Amino acid sequence: MTVWYTEKHTPHSGITMEVKESLFQGQSEYQTLQVLETYDFGRILLLDGLVMLTERDEFVYHEMITHVPLNSHPGPKRVLVIGGGDGGTVREVLKHPQVREVTLVEIDRMVVEVSRQYLPGVSAGLDDPRTRIFYQDGVEFVAGEPPGSYDAILVDSTDPVGPAQALFSEDFFRDCFKALSPEGVFVTQSESPFQHLSFMVDTHRCMGKVFPGPSFYLAPVPTYPGGTWSFLLASKADSGSFPRRRDGANLPTRYYNRGIHMACFEIPRFLEEAMAP
Amino acid sequence: MTVWYTEKHTPHSGITMEVKESLFQGQSEYQTLQVLETYDFGRILLLDGLVMLTERDEFVYHEMITHVPLNSHPGPKRVLVIGGGDGGTVREVLKHPQVREVTLVEIDRMVVEVSRQYLPGVSAGLDDPRTRIFYQDGVEFVAGEPPGSYDAILVDSTDPVGPAQALFSEDFFRDCFKALSPEGVFVTQSESPFQHLSFMVDTHRCMGKVFPGPSFYLAPVPTYPGGTWSFLLASKADSGSFPRRRDGANLPTRYYNRGIHMACFEIPRFLEEAMAP
Repeated sequence: MTVWYTEKHTPHSGITMEVKESLFQGQSEYQTLQVLETYDFGRILLLDGLVMLTERDEFVYHEMITHVPLNSHPGPKRVLVIGGGDGGTVREVLKHPQVREVTLVEIDRMVVEVSRQYLPGVSAGLDDPRTRIFYQDGVEFVAGEPPGSYDAILVDSTDPVGPAQALFSEDFFRDCFKALSPEGVFVTQSESPFQHLSFMVDTHRCMGKVFPGPSFYLAPVPTYPGGTWSFLLASKADSGSFPRRRDGANLPTRYYNRGIHMACFEIPRFLEEAMAP
Repeated sequence: MTVWYTEKHTPHSGITMEVKESLFQGQSEYQTLQVLETYDFGRILLLDGLVMLTERDEFVYHEMITHVPLNSHPGPKRVLVIGGGDGGTVREVLKHPQVREVTLVEIDRMVVEVSRQYLPGVSAGLDDPRTRIFYQDGVEFVAGEPPGSYDAILVDSTDPVGPAQALFSEDFFRDCFKALSPEGVFVTQSESPFQHLSFMVDTHRCMGKVFPGPSFYLAPVPTYPGGTWSFLLASKADSGSFPRRRDGANLPTRYYNRGIHMACFEIPRFLEEAMAP
């Protein structure tokens, strides 16, 4: 018998992969969690039946949500990660030697526990002495932080449905703006240009009400809808000045490099046109 | 009843899409051809059961295999397209006002006939007065052309198995080199960095024996394996000077623009490392 996992990205299409073994299935207060061992993508983590990461291609997403914002800042010391309980973003943040503290705010403790147990290559940084973890709603957490607390805020959220929806609201962006230090940078994952174009445009507009000149950048993630993912980056300091890149240590990466940092901000014409007023 | 088409990109994973209607199925001398009407991707053309194009995302592939090489040349007048019987590449070539003649060499007449009938938006340029079509093996055709015949050769081939294999050989690259004018440019599709890395590295090495300094560039194609596709570009004239871009007319495109032209040559670290000697 062969077992295949199919994720529908729309009611009419998706990806499919053969499963070797189901390693975990559980229900938290917030969602169902599964870990499957697959032939092509290693272990994969599913939340409510959707691929959150695969061992095969998570490096692209986690490197890109981390190193582009952190290398756009003159010297980030305190970093806040919202969502991302699997630990992949924290792992990448910890590669920056100047970072003194990374704060992870994950609403669902079970995500962290499952990742610690089944995805050690992803979750390793969660036990680093520089990491502190709060199991709390990210929106509430940020609202309660003193102004200027963080040099970078990275929103590594699930899709904008259910609890994650509030992470794309103007109120939340405003609270993040306040919680950032004067040169602080903010990034959020912002879905797929091939599947969620109007969501991207709306989010860009909403973020632009709070931050000067938010910019999209793109990266390939084969197992995400459309195979290409977008991120929205902004700075508290000034407007429209991405890409920019601080010279820093040569980070151990597999996707990200200096050229990619500069190139990823170039967006297709159809996205430019969708954003035009 | 619902009908789904699944393309396995490996024995263990692939993409799947719901089919509204099967519009054509036939067997040529070379391969089986199918045209399906799908919900999410419009009409799709399958050769031997593999997606060659979908109406939804073919624009990215066809714009990128065409405009990057043609805008890297100071003034391409005669262009040769090998493969590409669907006509998508010819359609893009004809957007360049300085092109006087585009020669399409497609081994399988049925591909052209099926595209003319079922994919009019893709095949429109095939009936342009500047287009001439030869139903012939591309390798033999190029070998028989006088030296210096073309300013650009675009190899829009199927995967490197069966008859298309010879389109990735040193002999073929040598014949193309001869058939190019002194500043001529050559491009070939070169598969997916996420699925065919060693093929890419081998092809780069092989092309480097003939052309000075071939360069990879990348573009997202959601329905191709890995969701990202690669191309190998070289010039007869000089070495290692991509990206470069002639200022030209503002082409009507949906993906390609000036920024993308310059950015697409930035490649991930894992590809750089795989190419390192």
